[in-house]
Amino acid sequence: MTDVSMTRLSASDAGFDDALSRLLAWEDSVDHQVNESVRHILGEVKLRGDQAVLEFTAKFDQLEVASMAELEMSITRMEQALERIPAEQREALEAAAGRIRDYHQRQKQDSWQYEDVDGTVLGQKVTPLDRVGIYVPGGKAAYPSSVLMNAIPAKVAGVSEVVMVVPTPAGVVNDMVLAAAVIAGVDRVFTLGGAQAVGALAYGTETVPAVDKIVGPGNIFVATAKREVFGTVGIDMIAGPSEILVICDGKTDPDWIAMDLFSQAEHDEQAQSILISPDGAFLDAVEASIRKLLPTMERADIIARSLSDRGALIKVRDLEEAAKVSNRIAPEHLELSVEEPRSLVEKIRHAGAIFMGRYTAEALGDYCAGPNHVLPTSGTARFSSPLGVYDFQKRSSLIGFSAAGADRMGRVASVLSRGEGLTAHARSAEYRIRDEG
Amino acid sequence: MTDVSMTRLSASDAGFDDALSRLLAWEDSVDHQVNESVRHILGEVKLRGDQAVLEFTAKFDQLEVASMAELEMSITRMEQALERIPAEQREALEAAAGRIRDYHQRQKQDSWQYEDVDGTVLGQKVTPLDRVGIYVPGGKAAYPSSVLMNAIPAKVAGVSEVVMVVPTPAGVVNDMVLAAAVIAGVDRVFTLGGAQAVGALAYGTETVPAVDKIVGPGNIFVATAKREVFGTVGIDMIAGPSEILVICDGKTDPDWIAMDLFSQAEHDEQAQSILISPDGAFLDAVEASIRKLLPTMERADIIARSLSDRGALIKVRDLEEAAKVSNRIAPEHLELSVEEPRSLVEKIRHAGAIFMGRYTAEALGDYCAGPNHVLPTSGTARFSSPLGVYDFQKRSSLIGFSAAGADRMGRVASVLSRGEGLTAHARSAEYRIRDEG
Repeated sequence: MTDVSMTRLSASDAGFDDALSRLLAWEDSVDHQVNESVRHILGEVKLRGDQAVLEFTAKFDQLEVASMAELEMSITRMEQALERIPAEQREALEAAAGRIRDYHQRQKQDSWQYEDVDGTVLGQKVTPLDRVGIYVPGGKAAYPSSVLMNAIPAKVAGVSEVVMVVPTPAGVVNDMVLAAAVIAGVDRVFTLGGAQAVGALAYGTETVPAVDKIVGPGNIFVATAKREVFGTVGIDMIAGPSEILVICDGKTDPDWIAMDLFSQAEHDEQAQSILISPDGAFLDAVEASIRKLLPTMERADIIARSLSDRGALIKVRDLEEAAKVSNRIAPEHLELSVEEPRSLVEKIRHAGAIFMGRYTAEALGDYCAGPNHVLPTSGTARFSSPLGVYDFQKRSSLIGFSAAGADRMGRVASVLSRGEGLTAHARSAEYRIRDEG
Repeated sequence: MTDVSMTRLSASDAGFDDALSRLLAWEDSVDHQVNESVRHILGEVKLRGDQAVLEFTAKFDQLEVASMAELEMSITRMEQALERIPAEQREALEAAAGRIRDYHQRQKQDSWQYEDVDGTVLGQKVTPLDRVGIYVPGGKAAYPSSVLMNAIPAKVAGVSEVVMVVPTPAGVVNDMVLAAAVIAGVDRVFTLGGAQAVGALAYGTETVPAVDKIVGPGNIFVATAKREVFGTVGIDMIAGPSEILVICDGKTDPDWIAMDLFSQAEHDEQAQSILISPDGAFLDAVEASIRKLLPTMERADIIARSLSDRGALIKVRDLEEAAKVSNRIAPEHLELSVEEPRSLVEKIRHAGAIFMGRYTAEALGDYCAGPNHVLPTSGTARFSSPLGVYDFQKRSSLIGFSAAGADRMGRVASVLSRGEGLTAHARSAEYRIRDEG
């Protein structure tokens, strides 16, 4: 299939709101068999450690080894990968890593504290997580850019040990992924995948150290396992299909816009690419470009399916209305392909990442602009943020009462806790009141 | 039962690590019947809106009303509550609210951006969530302090609409809770509770507006419903039982420390109170204080059960070892009842809130020190933080490439995306390279 038929909507139509809701609808299907299987794997890994991990790896990855030590990648082997990849790829990875590091350094948060009039100290102590696990998918969908995007913020935060797991089905290793791990500063790599890798990171085994948080994309088994171990460890958001929303004033080359839509659609059939414009003729022109360019694409089938099933071309009255529709969608990626992106951006309330101006292809952001490409999907940009250094730092409140402060605030706490019927709280505070201490 | 027998451990014992693990073990039990029931309620609320909410409220809260409008609390009624409570309580609430507001204002994060050498703009736009829901338990466990702690950070973040739900079984209303809502700046209040309230906030009904995030404590039905709607809306952490860890050098009045342990234990039987000291005789003295004071406590039964089942007195070599044990526990509340808390705090890596010095009773922090009392429990301080303004703000990455930047970075993106087999990404970037654009 390389024929494509895209949904056309107009924001002024009576049924627009409902039609938009149907277009955006995406439910993370719960598969009970997957749940059962994941629970079994996690239970075994928790109970039997290395031995269980070895058995599942032999079973699911056709990788038979005598001991877990063989599933740890040596530093030497990783450095070989860095030497082995073409110079052009190494330079590109290093350039991307440099920009990602620069950008993320600006997200790092510091501890702070202050003293009030009573001499009471208040503040927040900000510390990095001790140890973090990064899941990297193996096989065909091995993305070295994901290694950079997940590992660099952790290292910038000051995480002392970043442990990467990557499945190597039948022993097949991706050198570019390993090279990215070296460049990003990953500390240890295990060639493990699936729910067993998540279990090993969450509970720890004789060989794999338990981590405090697990991040990184994975298939349905990995996502289900992450949900399941949440609470024992922290996890990042579970991502839905990738999406792009392009707002264009009608003055960008329609081929550029078509290719930008393709760049999202080529991820998979469920990916969503939407174009909004006040210029109806431009929507026609982009559709013509889509038809023209589609047959030249390597992943034409996937693109055609994604655009036909989940894509849309939406006509709006003006850019003001475009922003309104965009806020309703809260897209993962938002391209503002317009003359004055900086004034339009003021009207945007929810988006994972905003790409401003005709030169800012979303693909540039995926790899090397600097900001993270792990972004909130499926409308969750209404309440969540790109992966960042802040995801690898945590805070502890600091409270140090002076005698005067404890006296004054002890009285307040006493009234409030007695109002709530918690008398041990009240008496604990009252001991610190001067007259009664 | 007001007899109490506390576990004694010594960090130098051979089996200490295992004994500590057993002491800390706490599993959030999954109740399949609760799950089923919650799913049914949420499904009905999503499908039938107000009508379903009315039915469940009549059934579970014995509150029969003709229409949803009657379940919204009028501003007049709320202001009456503020007038009606004793002046002492009102002043205490206002004093606490003032300090909480002051402290949280320092957490507010601003947008930032910078321009690189190519004229490319990078940054992050920080915006408040649009609308937030706050769940407040009703009945006996109605805590006005929780209203302040959940609502004030949202308002400081700039959330334009804070919607509170609070069950009023058989119509019983807690004036202090309503007064706290007025003081905190809550915008709308519905007298709803349980899974039906969570469903109404998550999906919206004809009367209750859909929110972007739901925070606040609740019973097993509320917690299960929050887990279930996560993804549709954001949620805060699901809290486990409350815990306190006190590290004492042996020089604080043992009655004070006993009462501090009680103040955690009185919450419920599963709460956990642990004391660590290098001074064995001090541990004995605190145990004697516990026996002496226990019969004077209103909640003696709960305290005795909590201390016997989950409490412990731990002997360590020195404060250095105390810090090590504390980092292993990653407590929700950590009291450093020592001479030099500021040097000990340097050694603490994981804790929800740190209370420094003999005057800083944890109870003061619960009500009016300023920092939030919603804290990570069950060891999750290893990877998570107190509730804060940052929980009501989200970020959008900003990327604006200049023509020169797109030219330079387009080349890098092209190499990396072709390395990953994503050719639409590559071509989208390549259009922006000068020679080939």
